[in-house]
Amino acid sequence: MNYQTLREECCEANRRLPALGLAALTFGNVSCLDRPRGVFAIKPSGVAYAALTARDIVILDLDGQVVDGRLRPSSDTPTHRRLFLAFNHIRAVAHTHSRHATAFAQARRAIPCLGTTHADYFHGAVPVTRPLTAAEIRGDYEWATGSVIVERFRKLDPAAVSGALVSGHGPFVWGGSGAAAVETAFALELVAGLARETLTLNPRAATVSAALRDKHFLRKHGAQAYYGQPADGGRLSNQTTKQTKIKQP
Amino acid sequence: MNYQTLREECCEANRRLPALGLAALTFGNVSCLDRPRGVFAIKPSGVAYAALTARDIVILDLDGQVVDGRLRPSSDTPTHRRLFLAFNHIRAVAHTHSRHATAFAQARRAIPCLGTTHADYFHGAVPVTRPLTAAEIRGDYEWATGSVIVERFRKLDPAAVSGALVSGHGPFVWGGSGAAAVETAFALELVAGLARETLTLNPRAATVSAALRDKHFLRKHGAQAYYGQPADGGRLSNQTTKQTKIKQP
Amino acid sequence: MNYQTLREECCEANRRLPALGLAALTFGNVSCLDRPRGVFAIKPSGVAYAALTARDIVILDLDGQVVDGRLRPSSDTPTHRRLFLAFNHIRAVAHTHSRHATAFAQARRAIPCLGTTHADYFHGAVPVTRPLTAAEIRGDYEWATGSVIVERFRKLDPAAVSGALVSGHGPFVWGGSGAAAVETAFALELVAGLARETLTLNPRAATVSAALRDKHFLRKHGAQAYYGQPADGGRLSNQTTKQTKIKQP
Amino acid sequence: MNYQTLREECCEANRRLPALGLAALTFGNVSCLDRPRGVFAIKPSGVAYAALTARDIVILDLDGQVVDGRLRPSSDTPTHRRLFLAFNHIRAVAHTHSRHATAFAQARRAIPCLGTTHADYFHGAVPVTRPLTAAEIRGDYEWATGSVIVERFRKLDPAAVSGALVSGHGPFVWGGSGAAAVETAFALELVAGLARETLTLNPRAATVSAALRDKHFLRKHGAQAYYGQPADGGRLSNQTTKQTKIKQP
Repeated sequence: MNYQTLREECCEANRRLPALGLAALTFGNVSCLDRPRGVFAIKPSGVAYAALTARDIVILDLDGQVVDGRLRPSSDTPTHRRLFLAFNHIRAVAHTHSRHATAFAQARRAIPCLGTTHADYFHGAVPVTRPLTAAEIRGDYEWATGSVIVERFRKLDPAAVSGALVSGHGPFVWGGSGAAAVETAFALELVAGLARETLTLNPRAATVSAALRDKHFLRKHGAQAYYGQPADGGRLSNQTTKQTKIKQP
Repeated sequence: MNYQTLREECCEANRRLPALGLAALTFGNVSCLDRPRGVFAIKPSGVAYAALTARDIVILDLDGQVVDGRLRPSSDTPTHRRLFLAFNHIRAVAHTHSRHATAFAQARRAIPCLGTTHADYFHGAVPVTRPLTAAEIRGDYEWATGSVIVERFRKLDPAAVSGALVSGHGPFVWGGSGAAAVETAFALELVAGLARETLTLNPRAATVSAALRDKHFLRKHGAQAYYGQPADGGRLSNQTTKQTKIKQP
Repeated sequence: MNYQTLREECCEANRRLPALGLAALTFGNVSCLDRPRGVFAIKPSGVAYAALTARDIVILDLDGQVVDGRLRPSSDTPTHRRLFLAFNHIRAVAHTHSRHATAFAQARRAIPCLGTTHADYFHGAVPVTRPLTAAEIRGDYEWATGSVIVERFRKLDPAAVSGALVSGHGPFVWGGSGAAAVETAFALELVAGLARETLTLNPRAATVSAALRDKHFLRKHGAQAYYGQPADGGRLSNQTTKQTKIKQP
Repeated sequence: MNYQTLREECCEANRRLPALGLAALTFGNVSCLDRPRGVFAIKPSGVAYAALTARDIVILDLDGQVVDGRLRPSSDTPTHRRLFLAFNHIRAVAHTHSRHATAFAQARRAIPCLGTTHADYFHGAVPVTRPLTAAEIRGDYEWATGSVIVERFRKLDPAAVSGALVSGHGPFVWGGSGAAAVETAFALELVAGLARETLTLNPRAATVSAALRDKHFLRKHGAQAYYGQPADGGRLSNQTTKQTKIKQP
């Protein structure tokens, strides 16, 4: 079996993280899933981005067993696996410690939908999980990190809000491809920075109306989208959300 | 009919947005008007800046009909058209989601004139519009976005204050050329960042005196301007405001 | 008479401003004085930095008459001239609209000496002037801008504190050469950013002790300095302050 | 005796400071110790980073006597020496005036452990020293600067918290190599920036639980570490902490 295409998609997506200012040192990782084959690719643990090649990428099955690759996978691998198992439509997960989004995670605040930039990417607030318990942390910690995200989405649609903040840790986002997940990670950092600055200027800043939130999200995502070009989906890489039926709130 | 010059001006102005740090992803757009011919050029919807060429630019008439071009125009096109119809002197409109200006828009605060940097470009506060109603959002949304700007300028001179913040959205600015509009977008972001930082240091910071505001604005704009070089208007691109009679407050 | 050396020093110093992130658009200017000959060089008005050459630099005498040069000098020229006439030891003046320093000027707050980074360059708070009166603004505005700085230094030593914030405008700094003045402008921006962030973390942050302030300033400046290399003054360009007798507070 | 390897390690580490945005002007310095030979290498005083070569590096013994080198050592040399004498396991010290960490030092606040990014590098808060007394400042100032750090660590483990903030001055950090110390300086700046932003969003933000702090620190450091690759320690340069027995809190 050959995983070259999956490795390359994953390597390229990981290398975009530092290029976009989303990851410093060895923080952050992206995984890409080949759902029909039941395997996913992920960054190896603790490897510097500048040195990363497609050969370094590790391939695992959805039981968490390494299928191919000579390096140890990211220590966050069970979190990615947990999300692939829970959210049926997603094909990639990106995790960063990007500044503004991580600050919201550390402050244990959701990122409210304060403007159309936010609504263009996320259909409402980006939620924050509860803190993990000491038992969860001492047990299968990285798996539990995924579980608190899944728990937080019981009443949320992961196709409408394609990311979450893990309390005291940082953001995990997802999408229909490695590139789409990284684009979402970038958009999340952008809207987090805007939200922080907005709240500095007006600590009681109101969220946009439901009408404005719906308008912006739905002009870019879902069946009625009219943003971008018909032929190529506007050259945006967020095919997932375009192909997914979005639950109307 | 050939629109090559207009396309090139428009393409070049759009490509300046990311180069100046004013636009990320596919946010933002610039339009350029040929008023004698009654047509304007605008960025196509959802196209990445790096890939943008003059051929991609879309040409429309002032009724909003596409006259030339193979791509769908920016979804914000009706906002630009609304401004061209209302503000007789302007030749270009630039829209961005630049951080500091957008934060003021999301905080629903005007940018006060706190210093000479501001007064060099804007003759007084840069205003914020009222939020759009649900009916306006569900109707011809992008046209209504232009209308709330026009409404906000009933008692303001668009030649003296060449931009506005749309509540919960971001800035729209204008000028005498694509380059001038982009320069104004850049100046707006600069003064918004200064204002935010000033308000952090002193939440009750006073605006500059009317005398200082007038001095700085009028030494750069209008008939009495003495800033720059006589021959070429100081190599600044703000010819519009130089050629326009400014209403003295 | 030939002014090539003075022109080149001035041109190089001006071009450093945008390279160091201290000036955007056409904001900012540096002048260099040849005191024995009684002439100074300054940036022309409204010329873009990228296009600036030594030939564009304007030479004036200390009465403000253009001696050489084909362009109109900076509109801020009388402010520079005022400082050269009042502060006998200085050889260059730099003016910027750099973000953090300008925010303090707009907030009408002095930059307090909150740490050794500040004390390494400025022997105490960097003061802010009073606002100009309407009469001063409507009269010889740029000369009056220099005068309020001079007024503010009646009880301060311009060799110990080599810069000031003009209320509602921005910083003016000085030094023993164009390069030294620009280095001081850069240091001022650095300490202003540190001060703003410190005050965010602790609005009642205390200034450093007089002992610590003296220690750091005097280990770099004055007769007892031991920072840097004996042969070349530590390769620092602040020769002025090294050569100047500093009044002990 | 030849010090070429030590000089090169020290030069390379110093040159990383401006490359990583940790040092401007001539602020900052890194030293590297050859403990078996009892000598350490340090940056010369006041030399610009861009001009720094291995030949410029100064070699001293642990009594503070210059052993080799033609330039005057950093004025902060006694601080480095004090730390080498007190903390037996360290091989390098890095000092910067990086913005966020210095702001905490100026605000005289420790950097609390608000997230996993922090816990990945520092096992708990990064402490701030007491201010130096006037007598200490007027005496052997730079040695006393080291002494207040050592004093602050009486009940702290320098292998678990590999840095400190000197009140009113800035950060000093240490590690098992010049590269490791610089990586720690970078990580400190990162977590300081995150902490500042977190405290802006939530002034009463809670530190992470002891369980989460231990989990993240110990998955990267100490005998039970499982982060990175077994063969090369995950390509991370923090070998010191990996080789050091960490006191469990």
